[in-house]
Amino acid sequence: MDIIANTLSSTGASPAMTHSLLEIPDFTPQTHAVVINIGTLAPEWLPCMKCAAGIANELAKPWVLDPAAVGASCFRLNACLELLALRPTVIRGNGSEIIALNTGSIGSTKGADSLHESSDAIEAAKSLAKSSGSIVAISGSIDYVTDGHRVVGAHNGVQMMQKITASGCAVSALIAAFIAIDPAHAFEATVSAFAVYGLAGEIAMGLAKGPASLRMHLIDSLHSLDEDTVINGVKITSFS
Amino acid sequence: MDIIANTLSSTGASPAMTHSLLEIPDFTPQTHAVVINIGTLAPEWLPCMKCAAGIANELAKPWVLDPAAVGASCFRLNACLELLALRPTVIRGNGSEIIALNTGSIGSTKGADSLHESSDAIEAAKSLAKSSGSIVAISGSIDYVTDGHRVVGAHNGVQMMQKITASGCAVSALIAAFIAIDPAHAFEATVSAFAVYGLAGEIAMGLAKGPASLRMHLIDSLHSLDEDTVINGVKITSFS
Amino acid sequence: MDIIANTLSSTGASPAMTHSLLEIPDFTPQTHAVVINIGTLAPEWLPCMKCAAGIANELAKPWVLDPAAVGASCFRLNACLELLALRPTVIRGNGSEIIALNTGSIGSTKGADSLHESSDAIEAAKSLAKSSGSIVAISGSIDYVTDGHRVVGAHNGVQMMQKITASGCAVSALIAAFIAIDPAHAFEATVSAFAVYGLAGEIAMGLAKGPASLRMHLIDSLHSLDEDTVINGVKITSFS
Repeated sequence: MDIIANTLSSTGASPAMTHSLLEIPDFTPQTHAVVINIGTLAPEWLPCMKCAAGIANELAKPWVLDPAAVGASCFRLNACLELLALRPTVIRGNGSEIIALNTGSIGSTKGADSLHESSDAIEAAKSLAKSSGSIVAISGSIDYVTDGHRVVGAHNGVQMMQKITASGCAVSALIAAFIAIDPAHAFEATVSAFAVYGLAGEIAMGLAKGPASLRMHLIDSLHSLDEDTVINGVKITSFS
Repeated sequence: MDIIANTLSSTGASPAMTHSLLEIPDFTPQTHAVVINIGTLAPEWLPCMKCAAGIANELAKPWVLDPAAVGASCFRLNACLELLALRPTVIRGNGSEIIALNTGSIGSTKGADSLHESSDAIEAAKSLAKSSGSIVAISGSIDYVTDGHRVVGAHNGVQMMQKITASGCAVSALIAAFIAIDPAHAFEATVSAFAVYGLAGEIAMGLAKGPASLRMHLIDSLHSLDEDTVINGVKITSFS
Repeated sequence: MDIIANTLSSTGASPAMTHSLLEIPDFTPQTHAVVINIGTLAPEWLPCMKCAAGIANELAKPWVLDPAAVGASCFRLNACLELLALRPTVIRGNGSEIIALNTGSIGSTKGADSLHESSDAIEAAKSLAKSSGSIVAISGSIDYVTDGHRVVGAHNGVQMMQKITASGCAVSALIAAFIAIDPAHAFEATVSAFAVYGLAGEIAMGLAKGPASLRMHLIDSLHSLDEDTVINGVKITSFS
């Protein structure tokens, strides 16, 4: 939660975290977008998540599902399948997570890390996008975004970002913040969030000596990015 | 919890966090001060909080209430009203939180951020101090402390500190540590904690490139502050 | 959890955290080692911990017990005694924690900090190792490891590391990662983890200005350590 909240604050978004079913009905209407992340899922949290997703849908607010380590247990997989039925606007995971979610089976992840390249998961992502109606976003050395038909890649970022715990979770939250600005263009917002986050990582890598200083400089870079740097720096390509 | 614990450790205090009702009766007598923060409140935590506040009162230990995002849900507001009845030594919040707590109504906060300047909340703080018997401390570009009669301002700090998630929570904990040293002067200790934290932020800002490096340098600065720097650097004024 | 996960990632290990009983049976077989840390223990977590330890034992996977603040409450002490019966491969604590666990009594800790030098706890550690069958590891200005007969000391590290919240928890996790590589030499792996973590702290101290920058540089240093630096830098002595 620490890196997620600070990533959002540094970009000008206004994060708030809650676990409690009792306040979801008060909290959710005040948001512009919701992120549901199963990172440290406990059984009592699932009703909160479903409640928040349901209210987001009623109020036409975008919401992002982060199926963290979905392939590591049946409990996580079943929770994600229930959340999937509530039609997330975007699903953001690594290659292994997207494959696990598409096939509905466990065993293809290694804790929070991915055993697959993001490119290995493109067909699974297209299939998942078609079956769910969601935009599917795959993190990796290249990030891919698909709605089941189009596939767009964001080529920014540096490899060491994978050594920062919860950097994937942070980009899920950033996607939600970007979509909150322009819900009608959720696909473009998702690609942009990937590219901007990766670009901030590239700038940070110039100052970093390892994963911990990279994390610090990444959040600093997100805060100081200006329009010119973004326009000149993002690397986005369309694959279909 | 991460930034709170590290803020306390860096200043020489000895933090310990607990959520569990079963150990509050053992833990609380070992403390010199207690902080109760509703940041990620869950229903099962409220009995723990009330138990800790009750024991602190019995043992005449000071305790600080941080009504984080109190205006965001009825659940939070009701929890805070129950805690308020247990007479916190200090209540520390941002302008919106203090206003919400004083009026006993929700809707005036934006997640963890404030919609109000701290100066907008001075009258609410005085009223809350009178009705509760607590010292009320408002974080903002100027920090204010009142007991319902006196109002003192601490003018240290830099704007970017508001981009550090939980920096308000950290100052609540620092207030508790300061009061622990001299419980008979809780008002002065609260003002001092604000000023010292802000001063550390000013020193850190000279080295920072964004919110994440500011956070790091702030904790480092707290650790290395000496008496001369504090005496020469704090800016405290009395308003009444 | 933040510093623990990032410590593991930076060294090339692959961390995953879970609290949920429902997924322990799926998660545990995928691990190479398990760490059970009672840092923010809640009653509903104890069955998860016992389940994970039981599965680790069945599958002959090493597991590490971190009895954080065990002396601060009966609840913690009783939880640790139940976990102790499940034969951890290694128990890693500070001097006060090892003494509390050996005597089975509370009152000898100060929150998360130690009231004892690590050297004060050597006899308690030997006794605990004999009674439990575990390797016992004491953090402090010198770190000690004993199996009840041998005592080996790791002399690396700097004093300011004690100002980094959860640095002890991080070294417990690092011990698990080291044992995972060579479970047949758990004693040597434990000593090595202490020495390597301390060495990374020494390198980091050359760049640090306080506890927060020390934490960052420590994680960076762990990531960039090479074999020569380790072989030339570790200071390990045998005491018996």
